[in-house]
Amino acid sequence: MRELGEFALIARMNAGRSFGRDVLVGPGDDAAVVAAPTGRYVVSTDMLVQDRHFRLDWSSPADIGAKAIAQNAADVVAMNAAPSGFVVALGCPAETPVAFVDGLVDGMWAEATRAGAAIAGGDVVRSPQLVISVTAFGDPRDRPVLRSGARAGDTVAVAGGLGWSAAGLAVLAAGADTERFADVVAAHRVPRPPYAAVLELAPAVTITAMTDVSDGLLADLSHIAESSGVAVDIDSAAVADPALDPVATALDADASRWVLTGGEDHAFAATFPADIPVPPGWRAIGRVRTGAGVFVDGAAWSGPLGWESFDGGERRVAGE
Amino acid sequence: MRELGEFALIARMNAGRSFGRDVLVGPGDDAAVVAAPTGRYVVSTDMLVQDRHFRLDWSSPADIGAKAIAQNAADVVAMNAAPSGFVVALGCPAETPVAFVDGLVDGMWAEATRAGAAIAGGDVVRSPQLVISVTAFGDPRDRPVLRSGARAGDTVAVAGGLGWSAAGLAVLAAGADTERFADVVAAHRVPRPPYAAVLELAPAVTITAMTDVSDGLLADLSHIAESSGVAVDIDSAAVADPALDPVATALDADASRWVLTGGEDHAFAATFPADIPVPPGWRAIGRVRTGAGVFVDGAAWSGPLGWESFDGGERRVAGE
Repeated sequence: MRELGEFALIARMNAGRSFGRDVLVGPGDDAAVVAAPTGRYVVSTDMLVQDRHFRLDWSSPADIGAKAIAQNAADVVAMNAAPSGFVVALGCPAETPVAFVDGLVDGMWAEATRAGAAIAGGDVVRSPQLVISVTAFGDPRDRPVLRSGARAGDTVAVAGGLGWSAAGLAVLAAGADTERFADVVAAHRVPRPPYAAVLELAPAVTITAMTDVSDGLLADLSHIAESSGVAVDIDSAAVADPALDPVATALDADASRWVLTGGEDHAFAATFPADIPVPPGWRAIGRVRTGAGVFVDGAAWSGPLGWESFDGGERRVAGE
Repeated sequence: MRELGEFALIARMNAGRSFGRDVLVGPGDDAAVVAAPTGRYVVSTDMLVQDRHFRLDWSSPADIGAKAIAQNAADVVAMNAAPSGFVVALGCPAETPVAFVDGLVDGMWAEATRAGAAIAGGDVVRSPQLVISVTAFGDPRDRPVLRSGARAGDTVAVAGGLGWSAAGLAVLAAGADTERFADVVAAHRVPRPPYAAVLELAPAVTITAMTDVSDGLLADLSHIAESSGVAVDIDSAAVADPALDPVATALDADASRWVLTGGEDHAFAATFPADIPVPPGWRAIGRVRTGAGVFVDGAAWSGPLGWESFDGGERRVAGE
C-alpha cells in the first residue's frame, strides 16, 4: 500500500465499477452526490475493527468486505428503505498487501450489488490495524418503519436465519470441523440479510415496527418493546432451528441460546397487524402484548439479551 | 466506557441535543432519516486515527472532535452544499474515560453547529486506539461545484488561511513555545473552514471549480488542474502570509512551503470567471491557463505538492 499511494489505490478500487443511477457524482471529488427522489434518505453507519469484529485467520478479505457492507445495508433495509449508496472509510497498515485490499473491495462491491447499490466514495488512511467504517444510504420505500410502532396484538415475525452466525463463531472458536459445519461458518463469515423479504413486500402490507437482528434476537426485540411501550413474547418452538442441533450437540452447546441471543445474522424482525397473514418469506415467532420487556413462552426473560459493545465482548470474535 | 456500556454511552452523547429541521429521525433506530429537499445530497467521509491524525498530548478531546467534523464539513461545502447532517463512528479502548468522550462529542457538536447541522447518528465500538470516522451530508445550494469545471483564464482564489495548520504542527513537533505561537497552534488543533465564504455567496456568482485545501494548496489545485484539463499558475506573493514569518524565523523554516504544500487548513480554493470581481471573503492568488500541471510564478513546480496518506507521513503528526 505504501508503494502504491493513496490516490493510485483509490483509482484501483474504483476501476471498472458501475455506479448505477443513484450515484450522480461518484468518487474523485470532495464529495459524492446521491439521488434522493423522495426528498429524504435514511443513513446508518457502523465500524468494524480487526480482532474485534473479524479475524484475518478466520475470514477472507472478500468475506470481511461483504460483512461490512451487509450489516450496514441491513440497517437501511430495516427502515423499509432500498439501499442507494455506500461510502467506506478504510484504515490499514502501510504494509497491507494490495491484493488484500483488492479482495476486501471486491467483497464490498459484491454485497453492495446484492443490496442494489454502489459504493459512491471513501477514504483510505494508515492505521495500526484494519478498521472499516461503512455508511449506508437508502430511499424510503413508502414511509420509514421505526422501532416505535408495535402495538399490542401485533404478530412478531422474522425473515432470515437466527443463530447461524453465533453457531459458526462457536465452531471457529472451538477449533471444530469447519468443513462439517460449513453452512454456519459461512453464515458467520458473511451474513446474508434477506433484503428481498422487505424490499419485495407488497406496498399494501403494513409493517408496524422493524429492526435487523444485529445484537441478538431478544436484545433487538427489547429495543422494539421499549421504543413502542409494549412487551414482546417469543414462542421458543417457533424460533427453534433443527439445522443447528448437530452443531450444538458436537460442541455441547445450547442451540436455543444461539437463536435467542446470538446476533450478527442480520435477519429482519418485524411486527405486523394481527389481522393480516404473515407475508411470504416471513415466519411468525411471537406476539406483541401490553406491558414491558421481553418474554419467552410467557415467562419474563432473565438471561442476557445479546451482545453489547463494551460488556467484555465474550460474544464476538475471540482474542481479547 | 466499559462500565457505562454502549447504549448508555450513546444516550449520554445525545442527551439534550437539538437535531434541527434536517434530521427527520435522529439517533435511536436502525438508521437516521435526513431531509433532501432538492432531491439529491452530497456525502463525504473521512477517518482520523490516533497518533496518525491527532495526538492526545497535543490536542484536547474537544479539539479532536471539532477537527473531525470540520474536515468533513469542508468537503461538503467545497461541493457548494450546505451541511445538513453528520454521522459518527467511534472506536475507542474500553478504558477510555467517559469524560474524554464527553469532550470529544461536545467538540463535534460545537463544530457541527458552526457548520449549521446536527449529528444524526453513529456507532461506538471497542478499538485498541481512538479511531473517528465521520460522514457528512449536505444540500447542494444550486448545482454541485466539481473540480472539473475550471477554464483557461479563470481567476484562482482562496478563502481562509493557508499554512497555519502546518506552521502549528511544526511548532508542536519542535517543542517550541505554543503560547507565543498560539494562533497557528490553535489552527492546527482545530481548523476553522470559512464556511460562510461559500454559503453566503450570492446565487448569481458562478464558481467554475472548487475544493477544500486538505492535502496542500498545490496538491489540491493539481486535482482541479487534472480534472479540468488545464494548468494552474499561482502567484507566490499573493499567497504569502506575513503572520507566518515570525514562526518560520523561530523554527528556521520556510513559510512559503507551509503555505504552498501545508494542507489541513481546510481553506477553500476555487476558480471564478475572469470577468467577475473576486467575491467578498476571497482573494485572488493566480490564474488558470491552458496546459497541464501546477505552476508557481510561471515556473512548473517540481517539489512535493502536499501530503499523501501512504507516503511515509512526514507531514502529519509525529510518532511514526
